[in-house]
Amino acid sequence: MRFSKFFIHTLKETPRDVALKSHEYLIRAGLISQSGSGIYSFLPLGKIVLQKISDITKYHMDKAGANEVLLGCITPASLWRESGRYERYGKELLRLKDRKDNDFVFGPTHEETITDLTKNYIKSYKQLPIHLYQIQTKFRDEIRPRFGLMRAREFIMKDGYSFHSSYESLKEEFDKMEQIYSDIFRDLGLDFRVVEADSGAIGGSGSKEFMVLANSGEDTICVCDSCSYGANLEIATRKPKAPNSQAPEANFAKFHTPNTKTIESLCEFFKIDSYWTIKAVVKKALFDNEVSEYVFFFLRGSDSLNETKALNATGANELCDVSEEEISKLGLFAGFIGPYALRNITNSKHIYFDNELNGAKNMICGANELDYHFVGVDLNLFEDLEFKDLLEVKEGNVCPRCDGGKLYFTKGIEVGHIFQLGDKYSKAMSATFLDENGKTKPYIMGCYGIGISRLIAAIIEQHHDEVGIKWTKNTAPFMVDIIISNIKDENQRNIGEDLYSKLLELGVECIVDDRNERFGAKIADFELVGFPYAIIVGKGAIEGKVELVCRENLQKQEYELSKIDNLLHEVKKCL
Amino acid sequence: MRFSKFFIHTLKETPRDVALKSHEYLIRAGLISQSGSGIYSFLPLGKIVLQKISDITKYHMDKAGANEVLLGCITPASLWRESGRYERYGKELLRLKDRKDNDFVFGPTHEETITDLTKNYIKSYKQLPIHLYQIQTKFRDEIRPRFGLMRAREFIMKDGYSFHSSYESLKEEFDKMEQIYSDIFRDLGLDFRVVEADSGAIGGSGSKEFMVLANSGEDTICVCDSCSYGANLEIATRKPKAPNSQAPEANFAKFHTPNTKTIESLCEFFKIDSYWTIKAVVKKALFDNEVSEYVFFFLRGSDSLNETKALNATGANELCDVSEEEISKLGLFAGFIGPYALRNITNSKHIYFDNELNGAKNMICGANELDYHFVGVDLNLFEDLEFKDLLEVKEGNVCPRCDGGKLYFTKGIEVGHIFQLGDKYSKAMSATFLDENGKTKPYIMGCYGIGISRLIAAIIEQHHDEVGIKWTKNTAPFMVDIIISNIKDENQRNIGEDLYSKLLELGVECIVDDRNERFGAKIADFELVGFPYAIIVGKGAIEGKVELVCRENLQKQEYELSKIDNLLHEVKKCL
Repeated sequence: MRFSKFFIHTLKETPRDVALKSHEYLIRAGLISQSGSGIYSFLPLGKIVLQKISDITKYHMDKAGANEVLLGCITPASLWRESGRYERYGKELLRLKDRKDNDFVFGPTHEETITDLTKNYIKSYKQLPIHLYQIQTKFRDEIRPRFGLMRAREFIMKDGYSFHSSYESLKEEFDKMEQIYSDIFRDLGLDFRVVEADSGAIGGSGSKEFMVLANSGEDTICVCDSCSYGANLEIATRKPKAPNSQAPEANFAKFHTPNTKTIESLCEFFKIDSYWTIKAVVKKALFDNEVSEYVFFFLRGSDSLNETKALNATGANELCDVSEEEISKLGLFAGFIGPYALRNITNSKHIYFDNELNGAKNMICGANELDYHFVGVDLNLFEDLEFKDLLEVKEGNVCPRCDGGKLYFTKGIEVGHIFQLGDKYSKAMSATFLDENGKTKPYIMGCYGIGISRLIAAIIEQHHDEVGIKWTKNTAPFMVDIIISNIKDENQRNIGEDLYSKLLELGVECIVDDRNERFGAKIADFELVGFPYAIIVGKGAIEGKVELVCRENLQKQEYELSKIDNLLHEVKKCL
Repeated sequence: MRFSKFFIHTLKETPRDVALKSHEYLIRAGLISQSGSGIYSFLPLGKIVLQKISDITKYHMDKAGANEVLLGCITPASLWRESGRYERYGKELLRLKDRKDNDFVFGPTHEETITDLTKNYIKSYKQLPIHLYQIQTKFRDEIRPRFGLMRAREFIMKDGYSFHSSYESLKEEFDKMEQIYSDIFRDLGLDFRVVEADSGAIGGSGSKEFMVLANSGEDTICVCDSCSYGANLEIATRKPKAPNSQAPEANFAKFHTPNTKTIESLCEFFKIDSYWTIKAVVKKALFDNEVSEYVFFFLRGSDSLNETKALNATGANELCDVSEEEISKLGLFAGFIGPYALRNITNSKHIYFDNELNGAKNMICGANELDYHFVGVDLNLFEDLEFKDLLEVKEGNVCPRCDGGKLYFTKGIEVGHIFQLGDKYSKAMSATFLDENGKTKPYIMGCYGIGISRLIAAIIEQHHDEVGIKWTKNTAPFMVDIIISNIKDENQRNIGEDLYSKLLELGVECIVDDRNERFGAKIADFELVGFPYAIIVGKGAIEGKVELVCRENLQKQEYELSKIDNLLHEVKKCL
């Protein structure tokens, strides 16, 4: 390719409202152009990178035996009503009407479409398992689209769906996909972690996320310093904490505890460690059909509630904060809430205890009376308590898997997510097969997503410096940028064109900068766009010398044109 | 690929509501599946064909120096308001609102997006010409989606846009694209014609269509039997017709002509050829902002009005028929309308004469009085008549280009359309550049479309027989189908697998039918899906014989396995 024939327009200025380096560089290097809020067009350079990522993904998916399809982008709302997601999905779902006033959605994901499609074809266990995938434009109507391709409304996703006659078969495919995804991200040149994850609105049980490690990542992931354990903070667990102080043994009693509305003040009052206190958190949970209920969570005072875990415990769609006024109206007193008689006072069916409170005794908790706490509380004496994993893991907690390692946090960008859906969609949509005994069953499904366009941003977040992008080997739009320093110099032009032909012959993807521009602008474009190598045909050309610049470290090496094979060999080696 | 690992499900029954063979076969052969009215999913076989067509298109577009992009599928309505198309496009434009109630369209074409994009980058004539293209999912909300992929609502299009500093440069690119498109359709194995076409709602002047010849085609195209002239009937012209009878010479006079409301009865009355009469057609024309006006067209009585030409003459958005009652209200008499005093009577600014009436004399026309006609009419005596090409060409008319050939009609499927847009969009959207003299000018644009998904249907319409599809060499999902007749026969299985490996090694795209199915079902699937060749490993295998079947003519040829190289050579030759 030639710069002079290629639509590349770089910008010196950082665009406004740009918070991430990837967003800045994607625009400045001329890879994307915004056409609306959260909607981007891919310019020629961006399209090449997008294609490379898609191709690598396709290669591995095909190798894994998945079949590529392309589903309708617009999905009839009737299918989303069958699954129940039309109402539940919220405003991120772009709903639309055709000229005849029929309802449709612009698919943000395609479980419904694929389930409806496959149920027309899959009749018997003999046809299972099967895995279908596509690479397609999706739309998610984000409330605050930002960060360029990182959180766009229109985006490109690889979404795959597998169908099975048993959970064992699903698990096998799920594990295979973990491996295939790892191969894809490794081929893309990414440093990533596979972590356990929350399944969110997609539903199902057991999911894993693929996180590209980058300081700018929106997700906090929790990893072990000595084993491979990793989990999104939303779902991370730890080895239960052991007490680091002696239990405040006491007989069960009610104490007057004025001015102890916080755990801190309560501990100060009794001179104890917060480990021995029970913290109460009240939320309002929103369910389907606009039903709302107050929900109660209890944890050790030394722990904090994780909102995602809390939400999952209730099965609600959303949790909202609750004011002191609302608490009063419930007949409770903020700072003095405890489990005693709570069900009677509030009538709530949603009272949850963190797993680490299971069997706890010698505890102090609110007495549901203003300025009073109970001491010597033994939770073993309660009946029918509902225990759930509710707490947020902290750095330094002990790994739940290896039993020795310490957990620490790092930031990640989610680029892939695999789910064991189970029969959630097939059951709702009556998608069944006949098993070996001739019995009709809903089939078991998995689904597997990769954020193809988001990956472009993730690669840049992990591979850039202060002057521009540093593409990885398999994602670079061109491997080598041949810079003809002064296009009016015939000797330089000839050498440049000769190198260009030779590299093309070797199968090296290269672009020759044959523009009538200053050398400074050309080298700045090389650094900004981030081709892995530049060959500079400049002033040294007259003495038969060119320079090879490596984008990774910006180091230069001089080569004699008479020993050009060394240079070509060097470049070829890197492919 | 293996049938046993591939999602292929063929159907024996013809689906309901299927009028075209391509629609029937696409569904029966398991290439597509309907997910909504006019919305289809591509199954794995269909996706492969789609990809092949896209790849061939991309290859030629890149070779022509065009740069691939991918524009936002969703376009802000503001851009369509700038160009004026938001109001004018009609109900085929899918309009939608996001969560913040902003207006958007699901782009059926992307002139607005690309013009808005390029105007941020193109500043000078030095950056021109440039050609950007994309292959993308589009949506057109057809009032009556039908014929499968032929007239779907969601479809895949290659749309390209070129930008120029002069009309000469545009013409050059337009001519190049005619060549490139011809190369693409030739590579796809299609018999097609390039014809002159109407520019329709896209606008601009000078456009050509690429028509795949097929009896089922929706378009009538008019071609010459002795030169390369071809045009859509909407725009076809002819050498002006010569009279085939002597002129009825007479002095100008008004005649009482009762019961002569039709041209036929009028000719009978005067015993003349309809060539010497003037036919009047009245329509109601709808313009922007709900303005409507009556419009009048005059042609020789021997000719008919072409609706598209009539519409283009007026510049209106639509023409509607007019009742006799409406004509009466205008002060006119159906069957007796003529040009005399017409402007005074009706106040209409829209009175058009067909070019072939230019200079006509000795004519008979309505007198704008009940039961009266004028004879001896000489149009040369009128002032300021507006002449336009209005007539519909008939089979047997003389070619306008070669002057000797006769025109005949054939049916075509439109698969490509190239337009010289001019400055329609750049002017409306203030997309300008500085020319060589430093003067600001709107740039000159061309646009170029190929119906990628429609091509799948067009190929089938041209290449099928009564049992199924016959893919062309470059569009076949697999070149060879190796049919292992009885999968339980170890010898057959070994021979089949061996052939499969050998063909893969040769780089032949092949699929092996290793299903536990009857031979009859396998050969029927071969014929229905339409792979170019099958190799049957059947009963002859025990004697070391296999058969090669050619899908084109269903002829079989036996091959000795000992001379397998002959067979492989035969297959390889066809690639």
